[in-house]
Amino acid sequence: MTIVATNDNVWVIRYKSDGVVEGITIPDSAQKPTHKGIIISSGELVSDKSIKEGRTAVFNKSAGFEISEDGITYVILRQMDIIGTDEYKNEIYE
Amino acid sequence: MTIVATNDNVWVIRYKSDGVVEGITIPDSAQKPTHKGIIISSGELVSDKSIKEGRTAVFNKSAGFEISEDGITYVILRQMDIIGTDEYKNEIYE
Amino acid sequence: MTIVATNDNVWVIRYKSDGVVEGITIPDSAQKPTHKGIIISSGELVSDKSIKEGRTAVFNKSAGFEISEDGITYVILRQMDIIGTDEYKNEIYE
Amino acid sequence: MTIVATNDNVWVIRYKSDGVVEGITIPDSAQKPTHKGIIISSGELVSDKSIKEGRTAVFNKSAGFEISEDGITYVILRQMDIIGTDEYKNEIYE
Amino acid sequence: MTIVATNDNVWVIRYKSDGVVEGITIPDSAQKPTHKGIIISSGELVSDKSIKEGRTAVFNKSAGFEISEDGITYVILRQMDIIGTDEYKNEIYE
Amino acid sequence: MTIVATNDNVWVIRYKSDGVVEGITIPDSAQKPTHKGIIISSGELVSDKSIKEGRTAVFNKSAGFEISEDGITYVILRQMDIIGTDEYKNEIYE
Amino acid sequence: MTIVATNDNVWVIRYKSDGVVEGITIPDSAQKPTHKGIIISSGELVSDKSIKEGRTAVFNKSAGFEISEDGITYVILRQMDIIGTDEYKNEIYE
Repeated sequence: MTIVATNDNVWVIRYKSDGVVEGITIPDSAQKPTHKGIIISSGELVSDKSIKEGRTAVFNKSAGFEISEDGITYVILRQMDIIGTDEYKNEIYE
Repeated sequence: MTIVATNDNVWVIRYKSDGVVEGITIPDSAQKPTHKGIIISSGELVSDKSIKEGRTAVFNKSAGFEISEDGITYVILRQMDIIGTDEYKNEIYE
Repeated sequence: MTIVATNDNVWVIRYKSDGVVEGITIPDSAQKPTHKGIIISSGELVSDKSIKEGRTAVFNKSAGFEISEDGITYVILRQMDIIGTDEYKNEIYE
Repeated sequence: MTIVATNDNVWVIRYKSDGVVEGITIPDSAQKPTHKGIIISSGELVSDKSIKEGRTAVFNKSAGFEISEDGITYVILRQMDIIGTDEYKNEIYE
Repeated sequence: MTIVATNDNVWVIRYKSDGVVEGITIPDSAQKPTHKGIIISSGELVSDKSIKEGRTAVFNKSAGFEISEDGITYVILRQMDIIGTDEYKNEIYE
Repeated sequence: MTIVATNDNVWVIRYKSDGVVEGITIPDSAQKPTHKGIIISSGELVSDKSIKEGRTAVFNKSAGFEISEDGITYVILRQMDIIGTDEYKNEIYE
Repeated sequence: MTIVATNDNVWVIRYKSDGVVEGITIPDSAQKPTHKGIIISSGELVSDKSIKEGRTAVFNKSAGFEISEDGITYVILRQMDIIGTDEYKNEIYE
C-alpha cells in the first residue's frame, strides 16, 4: 500500500481472532470494549511515538470507521482512540 | 489555475471513477464513506506535509463543498477532512 | 483610504460581475456559494501571507458584513472566511 | 485621564457626528453597523499594534458598554470588537 | 493582611463612595455598570502588569464575590473582570 | 503521609474552626462562601508557586470532594478552586 | 506484559482490598469515591512525572473502563482521572 495516513489518523488492519491477542479476553459485558489490529500507517500529527507502523494497536470498539481495499478492511482511527500498543504477534494476524 | 488555497483549506479535483482508485472498493453501506481526488492547492496553514499538490487525497464524502471553473468541479476541503494521501495515479483521473 | 484592517479582519471590495472572475461559474444550487473581491487591507493577526493587499480573495457568500464609503461597498471578512486567493484581474473590477 | 485600559480592553470616546468620519456613510439597513471614535487607552493584552492611543477605531455598534466621566462618554470595547483603525481626524471630533 | 491572591484572582477593597472616584459618574441606566476599589493582592497568573497592589481597579459591578475580614469587605475578582486601572486616590478611600 | 497530589490537584486538611482563621468572618449570606485549610500536597501541574505545602489555602466552599484517612478528612481541590493563600497559623489547626 | 499505554492513558491493576491501602477509609457516602491500584504503564503524553510504573494510583471510582487479561483486570484511566499517587505497598496487592 502506498497510502499514508494524514493528520492524527491511524490506519489499522483489524486482527481476525479478536479477543485472543496477547491472551486478553474482553468480556462482552465491558462498557467500552476494545479491538486490536496492526498499524499500517500513522499520520504526521500523531504525537505518541509508540503508535507506529508494525505495532499492534489496542483501541475502542466504537471508534473509527472502515474502508475496504482488495478484500482487506482498514479501520481509520484517530490518535486518541488508541489506548495502548503492543509488539506485533505474527501468529494472530491471518 | 492561479488560485491558491488559503488557511487550512485544500482544493481538490475529484476523480471521476470513484471507488476504483488504488483498487479500493468503498461499500455503499459504509457509515462514513470516503472520496478521492488530486490535490490542486494546499493552504499555508496545512500542517501535514503529505497533503501537497499533485498527491491523491482520500477524504470523507460528506466533507467540504464544491465550486466550478471551466467545467471542472473543485472540492474545497479543510485539512482535517483528509484521512490519507496517496501517489497520483495518472490513469484514473480523466 | 487610510483605514487599516485590525485583528484577523480583511477589508475587501467586491467584484461587480460576480461569477465571471477567473472564468469561475458558481452554480446557484451550490450549498455554500463563494464571492470574489480585491483585498484592500488585511489585519496584523492574519497569519496566511497569501491574503494580502491587491490580491483577489475568494470567500463564502454568507460570510462578513458590509459598510459603505463614497459609494464603494467594503465587505469585512475574517481570515477564516477566505478559502483562496488569486492574482488581481484588472479587467474584472469595474 | 489617568485611567489605563487593562487586558484586551480599549477605551474609546465616540465621535459625535457618526457616519461622517472619513466620508463613510453607514446605511441604516446594514446588519452589523459600525461606529467610530478616538482610542484613549489600549490594554496591555491588545495584540494588534494599530489599535493605539490617538488613532480612530472603527467598531461594531452593538459591541461594548459605556461609562461617563465629566460629561464625556467612554465606550469600553474589547480588541476583537474593532474591525479597523484610521488616522485621527481633528475636525470630526467636537 | 498576609493573604496573597492566587491564580488569576485579584483581591480588592471597594471604595465607599462609588461613582465619585476620579470624578466618574456612572449612570444608573448603564447596562454593565462598574465599581472601583483598591487592589490589595494580585495573583501570580495575572498577566496585565497594570493590575497591581495599590492601584485603583475599575471593574464590572456584577463580577466577583465578597468575603469579610475585620469589618472590611474584600471583592474577589478574576483578571478579566477588570476593565481599567487608575492611580490610588487617597481621599476617596475611607 | 506519602501520598503526593497529581496533575493540578491540591490535597488540603480543612481547619476545624472555619471562619476564624486570620480573623476572617465569612457571612452566611455570601453567595460563594470560602473555606480554609492547610495544604498537604500540591500537584506537579499547579502553576501558582504560592500554592505550596504548609501554607493555608482559602477556597470555595462548594469546590472539591473529600476522602478520609485515619480520621482526618482531606479535601481534594483543583488549582483554580483556590482564591488565596496565607501563612500557616499553628493555633488554628487542631 | 508487553502492552504499553498510549497518549495520556494509564493502565492500572486495581488493589483487591479497596479502602485499606495506606489506611485510607473511603466512606460510602463520599460523592466522588476513589479507588487505588498499581500503575502498570503510563502513556507518553502523561505530563505528571509522579504517575509512573510501580507507584500506587489514587483515582476516581467512576473513572475509566476495564479490560481483562489472564484473569487480571486492567483499569484504563486517563491522566486527569488520577488525583494522587503513593509508594507501592507490597502487602496490599494480592
